[in-house]
Amino acid sequence: MDQDLLERQRQPLLIVISGPSGVGKDTVVHRMRERRLPFRFVVTATSRPRRDDETDGVDYVFLTREEFEGMVARGELLEHAVVYGQFKGIPRQHVREALATGQDVVFRIDVQGAETVRRLCPEALLIFLTTRDDDELARRLRNRCTESSESLALRMVTARREYEKLSLFDYVVVNADGELDQAVNTIEAIIRAEHHRTRPRRVSL
Amino acid sequence: MDQDLLERQRQPLLIVISGPSGVGKDTVVHRMRERRLPFRFVVTATSRPRRDDETDGVDYVFLTREEFEGMVARGELLEHAVVYGQFKGIPRQHVREALATGQDVVFRIDVQGAETVRRLCPEALLIFLTTRDDDELARRLRNRCTESSESLALRMVTARREYEKLSLFDYVVVNADGELDQAVNTIEAIIRAEHHRTRPRRVSL
Repeated sequence: MDQDLLERQRQPLLIVISGPSGVGKDTVVHRMRERRLPFRFVVTATSRPRRDDETDGVDYVFLTREEFEGMVARGELLEHAVVYGQFKGIPRQHVREALATGQDVVFRIDVQGAETVRRLCPEALLIFLTTRDDDELARRLRNRCTESSESLALRMVTARREYEKLSLFDYVVVNADGELDQAVNTIEAIIRAEHHRTRPRRVSL
Repeated sequence: MDQDLLERQRQPLLIVISGPSGVGKDTVVHRMRERRLPFRFVVTATSRPRRDDETDGVDYVFLTREEFEGMVARGELLEHAVVYGQFKGIPRQHVREALATGQDVVFRIDVQGAETVRRLCPEALLIFLTTRDDDELARRLRNRCTESSESLALRMVTARREYEKLSLFDYVVVNADGELDQAVNTIEAIIRAEHHRTRPRRVSL
């Protein structure tokens, strides 16, 4: 057996969980963490206010707008974007440190950010999360109770535009209501499979 | 969500389990059958004598050399080859019927045959099975007790040549001693992952 290939298959993957607002990126990543799988999770920095059920440093790194702008100015973010009026971004140093451990690195990011990651690291593994259909997405956004009806409509329009970016992604996984564990099982299967490709991805940042 | 894409992701895959003689193709497929996974297995036809632990129609379809030559002459085999002096081949009609059920179709085949399948169906899913190293392969071939030392040496040389065909395959899975279930779990993960690609394989024969 080609020992060099086996070695390259063991190299860490850069795994991006993305998809429109409301598909359940946070929930999926949360469940992955709960399962204590051997992944390194990189947490998004954001300037938006913390929701009650969120923990700083686990769900997001919560920064003030001024702190965020400082990181942007110093080029410390792998990518950043203004999403619905709030800054979000991935600290570059966190990703490098995570990859250096040799474990697979996972982070969640909006579709705009995934596009940037694809450009910076063409061999990143991009997973597009989706609901079963538009109705399911609208229902979830409404149930969050944090959305005014105007922002709901905006998110639905944005989601439809984001579906057009699907071909930038490697895989699409449906996170249907009541089937969270199935979605996470599928993501695990994808990651396992990817470590057995005859052409392993080369990740560099 | 793009319902057309979901539909294409559900299309059956043509899954080929291949690799050098002695890596455990038969054992792996046998275990897949035991697990009663929702796959259709297509059985190779061969002119070689049945071993005591083999069942006609399950492990192989055992044919006389004359019967085999008749199928070749009538073009009824997807591919066929003379392997170590014996005919082996995949009945084309069996593969078509299996695909028509809508379930994923699995068969095992030697590396020479996998090359032919790649040519006939570029989007087949080809999995290369291997041992951990050459020593493990040699030990297994010796333990089969059916090999003279001359045929053992021949198989080792052939195996090395077959490893050079690795790039024709999509995935490589190590079937190490005592880790059969891990190998089968990996194959299952690969198949699950493949049904979530944003560019589903188009299988036609």
